[in-house]
Amino acid sequence: MSETLVNRQWFYAKPITDHLTADNFARREVPVPELRQGQALIRNRLISIDPANRLYFAIQNYRRQIELGDVMAAFAIGEVVKSTDPRFRVGDLWHGDFGWQDYAVINSYDRAEYYHRCTPGMSDEDLLGVYGITGMTAYFGVEKVGRLTGRETVVVGGATGACGAIIGQLAKIAGCRVVGFAGGPEKCAWLTGEMGFDAAVDYRAPDMAQRLAAECPDGVDFFSDAIGGAISQATIPLMKKDARWYHFGNMSEYDNMVPGETAPRHDAFLTPELKAICKERNLRPIFLLVFDFYCRRLEAQETLASYIADGRLKAPNTTLSGFEKLPAALIDGSLGSNKLGKLNVRLAG
Amino acid sequence: MSETLVNRQWFYAKPITDHLTADNFARREVPVPELRQGQALIRNRLISIDPANRLYFAIQNYRRQIELGDVMAAFAIGEVVKSTDPRFRVGDLWHGDFGWQDYAVINSYDRAEYYHRCTPGMSDEDLLGVYGITGMTAYFGVEKVGRLTGRETVVVGGATGACGAIIGQLAKIAGCRVVGFAGGPEKCAWLTGEMGFDAAVDYRAPDMAQRLAAECPDGVDFFSDAIGGAISQATIPLMKKDARWYHFGNMSEYDNMVPGETAPRHDAFLTPELKAICKERNLRPIFLLVFDFYCRRLEAQETLASYIADGRLKAPNTTLSGFEKLPAALIDGSLGSNKLGKLNVRLAG
Repeated sequence: MSETLVNRQWFYAKPITDHLTADNFARREVPVPELRQGQALIRNRLISIDPANRLYFAIQNYRRQIELGDVMAAFAIGEVVKSTDPRFRVGDLWHGDFGWQDYAVINSYDRAEYYHRCTPGMSDEDLLGVYGITGMTAYFGVEKVGRLTGRETVVVGGATGACGAIIGQLAKIAGCRVVGFAGGPEKCAWLTGEMGFDAAVDYRAPDMAQRLAAECPDGVDFFSDAIGGAISQATIPLMKKDARWYHFGNMSEYDNMVPGETAPRHDAFLTPELKAICKERNLRPIFLLVFDFYCRRLEAQETLASYIADGRLKAPNTTLSGFEKLPAALIDGSLGSNKLGKLNVRLAG
Repeated sequence: MSETLVNRQWFYAKPITDHLTADNFARREVPVPELRQGQALIRNRLISIDPANRLYFAIQNYRRQIELGDVMAAFAIGEVVKSTDPRFRVGDLWHGDFGWQDYAVINSYDRAEYYHRCTPGMSDEDLLGVYGITGMTAYFGVEKVGRLTGRETVVVGGATGACGAIIGQLAKIAGCRVVGFAGGPEKCAWLTGEMGFDAAVDYRAPDMAQRLAAECPDGVDFFSDAIGGAISQATIPLMKKDARWYHFGNMSEYDNMVPGETAPRHDAFLTPELKAICKERNLRPIFLLVFDFYCRRLEAQETLASYIADGRLKAPNTTLSGFEKLPAALIDGSLGSNKLGKLNVRLAG
């Protein structure tokens, strides 16, 4: 018999009341089970920390809702260390919902789109970020909802986030004027400097709506909206008739989610005046499920890689190190927006 | 409170020893559960009966292995009768692994390729057959493995089966000479008559290898192999160098499956002489997982529908009626080959 491996796990231990806190999680150590036929043992290397993780507690959408006792769910990059199925080759890197743990067992029938072998030769950070769900959410949102024709004005809410930073850069590549929202002068400077945005607006400024209007003299053609709330309230009045509105997150509302709702609420910030504007100008928030386009993942990856290769696209990320950092990374880093670009936690191995 | 619906189920009740028999199944009635958020209640209309069902007991491949107490698994067409998710609209038809039961509960996260909304306006039989997994197995096998250039010779094992009949017709459409195996003179006449094959060989005839050789004077370019055994033994010696071999089933071996094996064994029938031929001529059986091509399902469906519309393709099927027929349909009909084309069971409602 081989030595039994120990699997450290963070699990959902105490019900959330409103904000997610470190108290909601607890640690445990369990043995790694023996594999049966058709399985692989994955050793987690890099775990993705995303605002959407917060939603896993509130709804079931592309995965089962997290219940008390469950290992905290998260996308990750891991290595096949043991296999009983020719589909899983020892040494290959896989992307999947491996969760907050050292080891995950996956099955040959786990055919959800987000279980896939990774293209060799790329960094774990890029595999999880620009070539992962983050990058695909950006790419297909710009393609399907943005449909940018150049010389248009694009506003990006949450522009320092993993998706927002890529969406803004894709809009620049398409020849648009790009204005991003960020919190504080430093992040604003990063957007216009490092990310090449045309302008940045500090959403903490009391006159942020006026600042945004000044940066969008011709109105807004495409609004990439991951936050909702005051940012959407400032942008909607500037949107042109039939402008496109990609609403792929609603971070400002996550703590107000009504359990049982299917998607983040998108209308809590819509005052009667804004609703009238939306009706008059034919403005509707468009949700996409990125997995509906996932069979085109490699095509998108190829295009994104070509932009990176010729220097037009940067895939910024922040990586924390160590299993013990996981809850804080989600609570302070991702939900608290204390990071730039994609946030990950690397396991010590 | 609404009236509680009763769900009739056939479940796996007694371990299989070698052949599958009616004794391995038992019936029960359970209440239909209340839906939670993100679910739909499906009322089963037409249940697919396939040789591959036998494999569900032996291995886990694209679905979890069936264990004692589980509802017997099967693809089916069903109608959404209740929903708590906008993705599932009441009245829509869905294709999925709904099993041998009146009602199935499906989830928004059941994103396996085989859960999908059906194109409206088609018969349940076609949705499950030529536009379902059967048709896709045929279509992508011919496209990916067959790569037919016309004027080639194609041999189809299991030609009266759901896939084989379509593969043979697709090869005819591609301009090939098509020879099919069938059991008995009546089925052979059906192949050359109704299905338009160039020749049929009765695999029960003692001189079947000689008969096949006589029908393939130029050798075999593509072998569509769903059966293995004596049929493969007769065909392999006729195959040309680098001939293509699509081996998508191995019915002759299903009762000999070693639990824990990942795929049907393909070499039980390979004598040392045949192995030498395979090596010399570079002949290897190619397995495809149809779901790896499922994102192109609608494209294949469109092509197949155009062939049906212009009369070049027929999608034969046999439909039995009534919940009580399910075990016999699988055991005698599908595994016993007492049917032509696709076999289904329609539930009385």
